[in-house]
Amino acid sequence: MVIAVSTVIFALRSGEAESDHDPARPGLWLPLVRRIRPPFEGQWALPGGPLRRDEDLEAAAARTLQATTALEPSYLEQLYAFGTLDRAPASASERVVSIVYWALVDSEEATRAAETENVHWFSADDLPDLAFDHDVIIEYALWRLRNKVEYARIAHAFLGDTFTLAQLREVHEAILGRTLDPANFRRQIEAGNTIVPTGKRVTGTSYRPPKLYRYNQAIEPVDRGPLGSSARRRPSSDGAEASAGPPDSAG
Amino acid sequence: MVIAVSTVIFALRSGEAESDHDPARPGLWLPLVRRIRPPFEGQWALPGGPLRRDEDLEAAAARTLQATTALEPSYLEQLYAFGTLDRAPASASERVVSIVYWALVDSEEATRAAETENVHWFSADDLPDLAFDHDVIIEYALWRLRNKVEYARIAHAFLGDTFTLAQLREVHEAILGRTLDPANFRRQIEAGNTIVPTGKRVTGTSYRPPKLYRYNQAIEPVDRGPLGSSARRRPSSDGAEASAGPPDSAG
Repeated sequence: MVIAVSTVIFALRSGEAESDHDPARPGLWLPLVRRIRPPFEGQWALPGGPLRRDEDLEAAAARTLQATTALEPSYLEQLYAFGTLDRAPASASERVVSIVYWALVDSEEATRAAETENVHWFSADDLPDLAFDHDVIIEYALWRLRNKVEYARIAHAFLGDTFTLAQLREVHEAILGRTLDPANFRRQIEAGNTIVPTGKRVTGTSYRPPKLYRYNQAIEPVDRGPLGSSARRRPSSDGAEASAGPPDSAG
Repeated sequence: MVIAVSTVIFALRSGEAESDHDPARPGLWLPLVRRIRPPFEGQWALPGGPLRRDEDLEAAAARTLQATTALEPSYLEQLYAFGTLDRAPASASERVVSIVYWALVDSEEATRAAETENVHWFSADDLPDLAFDHDVIIEYALWRLRNKVEYARIAHAFLGDTFTLAQLREVHEAILGRTLDPANFRRQIEAGNTIVPTGKRVTGTSYRPPKLYRYNQAIEPVDRGPLGSSARRRPSSDGAEASAGPPDSAG
């Protein structure tokens, strides 16, 4: 029995002509890797690999992700552990239990990510046939994302430090896959406590440029309670670890 | 590397004299098992065991739970996968990655559960020293429970099919560990859509007995989106599987 750690990465990108999207609305994209060995050789799969003896789960997720896509998201959240018996064909030599992490990256990070013959970004609306149960995993990740966006800072990952309400609404629309009434959206957001006005406006030539907002820093993007912050310690190139955020608590 | 599957089970019970509880307020209790082999031999731990080749994760959780406590909760939810490097002492022969499930049981189920020399129920406020990082796991489960109770049907597991607002409030108080203002609680619950009046009242001698409510059946206690219902297929005694609820979707 093998423990694998995989990652579902979502980026927001403008729609491209070959997709069903209204090109004006951005959509969700994710990187996939073409498998070079059986089972499912030649098919696309989530970035990932076997857990090594000397790393914890989150480090394994970060390592395989970085190795395939060059991405290093600032937060990786554990999504779910997939361990049904039918994940791989009966002919597979080993049973694989997959612990899946997910992250959101902004389009700048994503466009920096190298594409090769074996690593390619796909629209969530236009996925190829996938290895294992990775279609189920992605479906579940999309569902979690769409549920989470209602009440958490999740959209922040796709925006800069400051943004207008219209930009925030567009991100919500892209994630949910439908248009939202601007007035209702404004009321809903302003009734909550997740964003606060910065007191500044977009610089520009319009008479009353839109207000700029920022996220309420008091709210963690990924609240893991007693497991502490999910901000990872990033290994530096000489192997020494530098902390990227509050230290992890045990476990 | 070993994959273990463990369970955190919460039951609501009246406080007992030796705990710090106000005996009038029920508290959370959980079953622990005394380990009979190293590491941590003789220490208390969560019910669980190694994942077998022929079972999926949820079945493993149900099996080990049933074997140690005789409990068969109607829903088991995956909590988290714990895989840090320091979970077991360096002297341990194998590294263990633990995928933890949790469930809530009502006190009737719990009181039916057999206690033996090696299986004992402990108050969540008065836990013994625990093996591995099971103290962290329980802390995390408590935190998830306290967060979830605000917006989900989670308290239903501790109540009957119908209940008064006062009973529901007492369950919330027991889970959160603090008293709640009855009028605010009533307003909060009635503003949501999780419970609906049955049109009946408690039968009794008071002039205006309290109204009885029930949960809004449209809301799943554990919503797993595309992974389907978490209601498990219960194996019957002759080995054939009987469905206990809507069939699981793949994965």
